[in-house]
Amino acid sequence: MEITTPTLLIDKGKCLKNIDKMLAKAERSNAILRPHFKTHHSASIGSWFKAKGISQCTVSSVSMAKYFAENGWEDITIAFPYNPLEAQEISTLASKVNLHILIESEESLKHALDHINSSVGYFIKVDVGTHRTGVDHRNKDLIQSLVNLSSDALVFKGFLAHAGHTYGSNSYDSIKWIFDGTSKILKELKEEFGGMISYGDTPSCSQIEDLSLFDELRPGNFAFYDWMQHNIGSCGIDEIAICLASPVVAIHKERNEIVIYGGAVHLSKDMIVEKDIMGKDKRCFGKTVRLSDSGWDTAIIGHVDRLSQEHGIVKLSEQEIAHIKLGDLIGVIPVHSCLAADLQGHYLSTSGERIEKMIKN
Amino acid sequence: MEITTPTLLIDKGKCLKNIDKMLAKAERSNAILRPHFKTHHSASIGSWFKAKGISQCTVSSVSMAKYFAENGWEDITIAFPYNPLEAQEISTLASKVNLHILIESEESLKHALDHINSSVGYFIKVDVGTHRTGVDHRNKDLIQSLVNLSSDALVFKGFLAHAGHTYGSNSYDSIKWIFDGTSKILKELKEEFGGMISYGDTPSCSQIEDLSLFDELRPGNFAFYDWMQHNIGSCGIDEIAICLASPVVAIHKERNEIVIYGGAVHLSKDMIVEKDIMGKDKRCFGKTVRLSDSGWDTAIIGHVDRLSQEHGIVKLSEQEIAHIKLGDLIGVIPVHSCLAADLQGHYLSTSGERIEKMIKN
Repeated sequence: MEITTPTLLIDKGKCLKNIDKMLAKAERSNAILRPHFKTHHSASIGSWFKAKGISQCTVSSVSMAKYFAENGWEDITIAFPYNPLEAQEISTLASKVNLHILIESEESLKHALDHINSSVGYFIKVDVGTHRTGVDHRNKDLIQSLVNLSSDALVFKGFLAHAGHTYGSNSYDSIKWIFDGTSKILKELKEEFGGMISYGDTPSCSQIEDLSLFDELRPGNFAFYDWMQHNIGSCGIDEIAICLASPVVAIHKERNEIVIYGGAVHLSKDMIVEKDIMGKDKRCFGKTVRLSDSGWDTAIIGHVDRLSQEHGIVKLSEQEIAHIKLGDLIGVIPVHSCLAADLQGHYLSTSGERIEKMIKN
Repeated sequence: MEITTPTLLIDKGKCLKNIDKMLAKAERSNAILRPHFKTHHSASIGSWFKAKGISQCTVSSVSMAKYFAENGWEDITIAFPYNPLEAQEISTLASKVNLHILIESEESLKHALDHINSSVGYFIKVDVGTHRTGVDHRNKDLIQSLVNLSSDALVFKGFLAHAGHTYGSNSYDSIKWIFDGTSKILKELKEEFGGMISYGDTPSCSQIEDLSLFDELRPGNFAFYDWMQHNIGSCGIDEIAICLASPVVAIHKERNEIVIYGGAVHLSKDMIVEKDIMGKDKRCFGKTVRLSDSGWDTAIIGHVDRLSQEHGIVKLSEQEIAHIKLGDLIGVIPVHSCLAADLQGHYLSTSGERIEKMIKN
């Protein structure tokens, strides 16, 4: 297939290896792998997981749950706080598949009890330090009352946590420190209240070897990885499974820059701040690589320094820029693959196959 | 229409007023208004411009040009550097509509001459200080050679500039300073080489009263405006025409926060850094307002402090948070309306009408 516009390439071989590696770790830890599909939101890519024997998945919205249910997934956790306004949709979906929702207040659980007519499992979302959502783990009275509300219709399943603050880490030690603290909290809750423990986040699931404390693992990003995960230490460059093929539309040798067709509507504005060789902060919206016959090289040859809606401004060395011509394609390793994937209409596999994905309505 | 998920509301009345105001200014300045449609990418919203007598538009990609051509637009400028890989598409499109492209090197112009078979107008893109794309205005030899390549097939139309560095401004004086420098450059080029001058960017088109130097104006964002434009001084809060209606899914009074269903996949990660009352930097991904029967209030009651893929974490005062219940809808004024609009599957007008838009393939 000829590429003429920004196209998100996926290396299926790398993706399958990433799945195999995480699945092997889950098996060694005697935990269920319930991967988060918000990273790819694609039924085709979902089928790669299914072929490995994975039959449970995590999603981040009711609409994503509907999409995967329509594509044969029968056991789905919506890892997002229960939205009272979607009670009817949840009820309908739960009459068809095995559905789990997240609860973090009596108010939301009571609303669900009053408005959902099919059997739904609920996890108590625990704040393990990210301070985004979840119950304070020290609030035992609240937790006890949430457990007590379990019924035939809404069934208490256990505790769910996402240690999102590992994303602020850049060393194994700091991830291990977060992980140990989180583990202690979840272990105590399980001992006191029962139920299972479901644990997420790609940095700790990638970097911590022994995950046997948990009953279930929900990483998502690991299927693709990205530059942020590489920076955190979760993956090697050769494990990153997606890359945006981007046409070169302007060359500015006088400032060691090229302009690519590949902007905020292809990569997202997610970025990381790195240090340049002078120790100065430098924003990075993606790393550039050369494309090859089989996909892309793993040698980094520059970075996306600025982004407009459709433009990416790439800094390259004098040496590299000398080889670039207008109309060439260059690869960009996204900073955040989940958001880059969300922005695409489809993927293209490195063997030339168009891969469809969920489209926003 | 009942809102249950994040939904981008559009106030048609405000949008029409914004169009009227810019059109009146263009008419006073005796300049063509060729609005940039990358802000809304919607044929329906395009028709609101058409009803005002506007028949020319600007887009930022060939696919967007095709979409608007299919929806009755017959005079389109693709304000993005010529992409050699899309020569065939451009050629086909130019056989159907009056098409203009941007050129900034001999290499790209010669490629276009060799590969485009229908008549196309070209503008020389001039770098007026943004240093994103464009020819150095002092490089008269290059400019002369680009003008000289004009032919029956590829017709030199003039000079096009986008003073994108006005986005870094926060006062009328700095915008006026950029505007004056840019004007001088473009005036000299026109006097020396002929052709028309096409000028863009919403901050200067909104804030500078006399735009009579220019033959054509290409602002886009002004149709919607957003919090960034408000910060730059381009609009009042009451002129911002879009707002994301977002369900409240969690309340954390202990830290003056609520969690909304409305994240990076609805608002984009574009943000501005503001000062809190202690003078400390504070990131803002959107401003929150109350929704009303007719749309939304203009009083700002909080801001989106952090964003995940689907979650927005909103900081609210103790007073405000006391009135909020789970399942309420709250409004978010986006930081950057163009990117927020790109992320939606559709709009909803404040009178309840679903408005379709271009969808990525």
